[in-house]
Amino acid sequence: MSRADEIAEVLTRIAAERGLEHVSVREVAAAAGVSIGAVQHHFATKDEMLAFAFRHVVERTGARLAAFRPGRSPERDLARVLRELLPLDETRRAECRVYVAFAARAALDPALAAIQRETQAQLLDGLTETLRRARDAGLGAGPGTGRVPPLDPRTDATLLLAVVDGLTFDAVAEPDRLPPRRLTALLDRYLKRLLR
Amino acid sequence: MSRADEIAEVLTRIAAERGLEHVSVREVAAAAGVSIGAVQHHFATKDEMLAFAFRHVVERTGARLAAFRPGRSPERDLARVLRELLPLDETRRAECRVYVAFAARAALDPALAAIQRETQAQLLDGLTETLRRARDAGLGAGPGTGRVPPLDPRTDATLLLAVVDGLTFDAVAEPDRLPPRRLTALLDRYLKRLLR
Repeated sequence: MSRADEIAEVLTRIAAERGLEHVSVREVAAAAGVSIGAVQHHFATKDEMLAFAFRHVVERTGARLAAFRPGRSPERDLARVLRELLPLDETRRAECRVYVAFAARAALDPALAAIQRETQAQLLDGLTETLRRARDAGLGAGPGTGRVPPLDPRTDATLLLAVVDGLTFDAVAEPDRLPPRRLTALLDRYLKRLLR
Repeated sequence: MSRADEIAEVLTRIAAERGLEHVSVREVAAAAGVSIGAVQHHFATKDEMLAFAFRHVVERTGARLAAFRPGRSPERDLARVLRELLPLDETRRAECRVYVAFAARAALDPALAAIQRETQAQLLDGLTETLRRARDAGLGAGPGTGRVPPLDPRTDATLLLAVVDGLTFDAVAEPDRLPPRRLTALLDRYLKRLLR
């Protein structure tokens, strides 16, 4: 792991344990056991350091998703992939807390916004592809089922990503109301309606 | 408007325009045109000031929802109420940016978490009640429709709130990908599936 990656790890841990607002070059240097100058050698500004750490976090999640091999059931594939994004254990809980904090800050930080946009675009492409397979396998309402909109891979991938982000966002703020078992039950419920 | 409310307004504006991380007693005092001592007279700590401002924001949204009179169609009622929570115009966009920032911070701040919990509980009660009316009006899958879960007011209110929070969270970070028309189309799509 490079020195920059080590600094990003330390930053992520501070953000997960105490919040992004406690992150500063000084704090990160102290927690990493290096000088402020050593941090500044890698990152000219705090914003640069934050952007690097955000990318570090999403790449870690991305690596888990990339290791995933599709099986024969698009529905099971979706459920398995999306579980990787939800705060279902301590690792993912910490990761999700940091993700929510970074994404919230992306609203006013163009560098973070670019990373968020790129990450979501990749997720959307993957979900769209899986939903296309699901539709081709005859899942989701076809035309002629009245009021229910037929499965549209792109649009429904957008909605599905919002559902997972919303469950994550709500669970990060209220872990007691939304424990892991509740989160997976809600996700499964959503997928059943989508892919009936 | 009380002095404390004025301070909360100023804090909310700073958070909406520059981000919650730029909020400090000093910044708020300067922007409000009062002394640091005047702010401290109302709020002993920065955390206390943040909690007051979060409550201020959610109460403003709550007042809009409280003014709402149910009509004859639970589906239209839901669509109208939930639109009030989405970032569909500049006022709600600013409000949503601040809401997302506060809720993200609630993960590690017990005072903010208590406000978030209380607000979500009220919203959940309202949504549960409307979904109960919808079910009583014969909407949503009844038993015997195979794999599709029948409408369960409490569970589906939880999922619906996550959908709206997720759309808000995603749109705050990526307003260009999720403009108002797209957000309402996605919400309507979800409601159609839920209430078919």
